[in-house]
Amino acid sequence: MDNSNRPRSAYASAGVDIDAKTNALASLRARIRATHGPHVLADIGHFGGIYAMPGAAETALVASIDSVGTKLKLAVALGTSEAHAGIGRDIVHHCANDILCCGARPIFFLDYLAVGASDPAMIAAVVGGVADACRAHDMALLGGETAELPGIYATGDYDLAGCIIGSVARGQILDGRAVRDGDVLLGLPSAGLHTNGYSLARRAFGLDGSPEVVRERLAIIPPGCAKPLGDLLLAEHRSYVAAMLPAIDAGHIHALAHITGGGLVDNVPRVLPAHLAARFDVDRWEVPPLFTAIQDAADVTDAEMYRVFNMGIGMVAAVAPDRVDDVWATIPEAIVIGGVIARAEGEPVRIIGIPQ
Amino acid sequence: MDNSNRPRSAYASAGVDIDAKTNALASLRARIRATHGPHVLADIGHFGGIYAMPGAAETALVASIDSVGTKLKLAVALGTSEAHAGIGRDIVHHCANDILCCGARPIFFLDYLAVGASDPAMIAAVVGGVADACRAHDMALLGGETAELPGIYATGDYDLAGCIIGSVARGQILDGRAVRDGDVLLGLPSAGLHTNGYSLARRAFGLDGSPEVVRERLAIIPPGCAKPLGDLLLAEHRSYVAAMLPAIDAGHIHALAHITGGGLVDNVPRVLPAHLAARFDVDRWEVPPLFTAIQDAADVTDAEMYRVFNMGIGMVAAVAPDRVDDVWATIPEAIVIGGVIARAEGEPVRIIGIPQ
Repeated sequence: MDNSNRPRSAYASAGVDIDAKTNALASLRARIRATHGPHVLADIGHFGGIYAMPGAAETALVASIDSVGTKLKLAVALGTSEAHAGIGRDIVHHCANDILCCGARPIFFLDYLAVGASDPAMIAAVVGGVADACRAHDMALLGGETAELPGIYATGDYDLAGCIIGSVARGQILDGRAVRDGDVLLGLPSAGLHTNGYSLARRAFGLDGSPEVVRERLAIIPPGCAKPLGDLLLAEHRSYVAAMLPAIDAGHIHALAHITGGGLVDNVPRVLPAHLAARFDVDRWEVPPLFTAIQDAADVTDAEMYRVFNMGIGMVAAVAPDRVDDVWATIPEAIVIGGVIARAEGEPVRIIGIPQ
Repeated sequence: MDNSNRPRSAYASAGVDIDAKTNALASLRARIRATHGPHVLADIGHFGGIYAMPGAAETALVASIDSVGTKLKLAVALGTSEAHAGIGRDIVHHCANDILCCGARPIFFLDYLAVGASDPAMIAAVVGGVADACRAHDMALLGGETAELPGIYATGDYDLAGCIIGSVARGQILDGRAVRDGDVLLGLPSAGLHTNGYSLARRAFGLDGSPEVVRERLAIIPPGCAKPLGDLLLAEHRSYVAAMLPAIDAGHIHALAHITGGGLVDNVPRVLPAHLAARFDVDRWEVPPLFTAIQDAADVTDAEMYRVFNMGIGMVAAVAPDRVDDVWATIPEAIVIGGVIARAEGEPVRIIGIPQ
């Protein structure tokens, strides 16, 4: 996608310039590909790297690394162990969803926690949250690093990244090749923003000030919502592993896209072949009121909202029409939100109902 | 090791409190171990996590995650592509050395780069350095995340972490069990501070001010040294993989310890059985003048210097006496710096020649 002519976005004004980052990484592709030997089974851009391990002819390893993003600034402002533990669970769920998009189940995890100053209660809460989420996913927390880096992080601040390794039978790798014109696109509801779009959401609600101000504002119930902003914004990134693995194992799933930064617009094309596109119909699902409240508060266009936020859909599955009932049998909450169509020039995703 | 009675150290005054971090993590051990099923082949504390992959009876995976630390503040102050690329190579070499201590050779790597604002040239230099070092190690750069996190990182600042996965034949895992009383301890020279102790070194030389001041001070040649401080402090973390793998494959190596944060004192016991200790004789090697310059400038005790810095030794190998000549045949620069002895109560490491 050529983003060079797009006007400077609200997200860029909030400090996140997706295009600058994308352009920087584009120049690196050749050097990264130069490290890929015959063991690497998927090109750059999928949700997980896929590696054919020597000595395991039937199995591939799938790996991904990610971080929580500025959601954790809200946990820092709240300062509660429960908020920090939620951040720990968030990164595990985020990473587990990513490798799920390759068809993989998690086997082990490593966490990286960087702090400005060692606060034992905070460290224990964050890493404890990571450990508990690993256990809930039958995955070993195999390693970790807690780095104290004064001068990079302010006292009380931290960053949390995680690296996940999963395994998948080589015949069950999801890499988009199975997707067909006419496939149904099912959406699974998200639990909120998950871990993306927080720089913009924080700006929208004035959550980048002092901890006292942030705590006060997190207690406000936004228009149309049923809960205080703090509960909505710290809602845990949902893991789709338990819900989705049986459908993957049964062969019902042609492709899975985890809807993270970039929204439906940027994430779904990552698992589509070059000749196919996704068409979504926004009338098919109800966008949770939190997203509307963000949009109203920050004056963001529809097009940008759908590029920054998941808009209520945390995972998209491409499924053959005759398998949709089978998927519903194990995942009753899945919603038909669109379908796979032939791709017109330069249009991998069409969202019907919003101005593009 | 019980650190509770140790006086507040110079390192703690420089902002890094190793003991507070250690205590926080101690409380987490049970929760981390609860995630470890029968696939996990080594307990917490080794240089890499070791995982017996299902479907690969002969092979174990070894994983580690780490970051560069505040060394990268010097690269930020210099602002050159070469300095940023060096930081990228540093994290790969650091991680490769860690899993080498389990006997593993690298298979793939994932990087996490977090920035305050997207600077395409800086991102390309850092990730390019990572990619080039991966290629030099015949390892795939399988994934990565570049996160733009305004509000956590200052504009121009960044943090870089990396996660490495290696493989080792299950019969060749180095886990300390092979170490014997009477083994010779060989040291391999470091190329400088590698990636540890920079918060203290930066304080010692007044390198935590404005970029202009830092650049000026990095041009100074410290007492007894042959190069400017910038060259000495940004010297690349040396990788011992190519030098050491042939000796590991030949079965000459009983244990390997990568001398990172914690120095000889904390790192060597990680690969010793509980009944054995390491005795080092500081007269056996020449401590490079950079370390002496740091000690003089920051007024640090000998005991703390050996706990914070590698003091000129980047890797320690335990080798049976009758194999030392074989190791010298492929690693002529290895120096006999001590030996393995029986462990007295609570004394896993004795350093002869400095006050403990």
